[in-house]
Amino acid sequence: MALSRNEIKLIRSLQAKKARETNRLFVVEGVKLVAELLNQDKFRVESIFYTPDHGLELPKKIHSFQVSNTELERISGLVTPNKVLAVVKFPAVVNPDWSVENLVLILDEIKDPGNLGTILRTADWFGVKTILASPGTVDLFNPKVIQASMGAVYRVNFIQDGLEEHIAALKKNGFTVVSADLNGKNLYSYPFPAKFALVAGSESHGISDKITAICDDQLTIPRVGETESLNVGVAMGIILSAFRSAGA
Amino acid sequence: MALSRNEIKLIRSLQAKKARETNRLFVVEGVKLVAELLNQDKFRVESIFYTPDHGLELPKKIHSFQVSNTELERISGLVTPNKVLAVVKFPAVVNPDWSVENLVLILDEIKDPGNLGTILRTADWFGVKTILASPGTVDLFNPKVIQASMGAVYRVNFIQDGLEEHIAALKKNGFTVVSADLNGKNLYSYPFPAKFALVAGSESHGISDKITAICDDQLTIPRVGETESLNVGVAMGIILSAFRSAGA
Repeated sequence: MALSRNEIKLIRSLQAKKARETNRLFVVEGVKLVAELLNQDKFRVESIFYTPDHGLELPKKIHSFQVSNTELERISGLVTPNKVLAVVKFPAVVNPDWSVENLVLILDEIKDPGNLGTILRTADWFGVKTILASPGTVDLFNPKVIQASMGAVYRVNFIQDGLEEHIAALKKNGFTVVSADLNGKNLYSYPFPAKFALVAGSESHGISDKITAICDDQLTIPRVGETESLNVGVAMGIILSAFRSAGA
Repeated sequence: MALSRNEIKLIRSLQAKKARETNRLFVVEGVKLVAELLNQDKFRVESIFYTPDHGLELPKKIHSFQVSNTELERISGLVTPNKVLAVVKFPAVVNPDWSVENLVLILDEIKDPGNLGTILRTADWFGVKTILASPGTVDLFNPKVIQASMGAVYRVNFIQDGLEEHIAALKKNGFTVVSADLNGKNLYSYPFPAKFALVAGSESHGISDKITAICDDQLTIPRVGETESLNVGVAMGIILSAFRSAGA
């Protein structure tokens, strides 16, 4: 079956946020990420386009279409397309149950998709179940986020809506909300709370005044050398690890 | 002064490793990175090309040439050139004095320039003075490494030569050489040595057998969630921070 011009146009358009939100669809590419996609049940797959050598077992209930390499190149957002492309529906928003969580991430205007992908991967490693994000944070379904997340995108509940209400609910449920910045308390002597929500700010502007005003505390990773700042994903990893190291 | 065709060709060629090594020259771009370059004395600047609005104070002893925006675009490796481009000489190799260092990084085939840049930035934050790297690790003067390092490239002594001899010298000087992998000792209960050399392996293949055989110990960051691995820069940051946290 050859792809129609309209199908190609729709799938290509999903590289852009606006089209993703209008169609409530996004794209997952590559053998490994699609294999993981088929192994989870949070995301529903709309259709799969594959070249003959993909090597995956495609469930019968999913609409799957064999395409030529040239056609895959046409619909792919990758420089080197990797055998299979899935069009996936936006998942339903799952309301978190704060009574059973003790470690939450809050992202205030993280703009770089590679950084968000790394943060998702790191958060998943340390058992974070829910990430809250400001409206200006790069969206979860950006293809570069999905690639960089290494599959964590399937496991972490990412809520980019009603940030301030969610933070208020966190506090009501006993969470201490703590931002990472350059002038806070020393991480190495910090008495971590039992329920910890960590706030990361934008790569260039730090944490906004609005969110800073809501935070209970500030935390700093002590610097020995001269570099001005740490990468936000690295800083998050260090603090999440310190929290787990403290036995929580 | 208009740039000659040969000058344009030489500067553009420095995007590639081979030309960098043949000419012993590399390129630094952008107002911030060039400003930092002019504020240090490890790297000698060969020449600077600038558009009129660069806003830097250029020392008289450096050959500086005003160019048009179009010319800057021709010699730049950036998608959006940023006002100034410096051609810089390779620095002399500085032999480390292991008796005064207590924290060293060893990189075994790190291939991604963004990862190396982040590792340099993180290492500099935690006061690492020397990084040893295997021959197959991406080179320090790759433009993407320089951009991602945020200036740490000027401060960290990067030695990509004689790796095994250097590791032997480290051990003679009382360093414990420890690799980060998925089946080592628990980071959170690890008794850090006073002199600590941390080994990071390639993003896809981990640490080579040759280097593993030299290591004194293996270390693992405990996983709570499901993600297969951490980004190498994040993992390095977590372990370097744990070392500093232990009071060393």
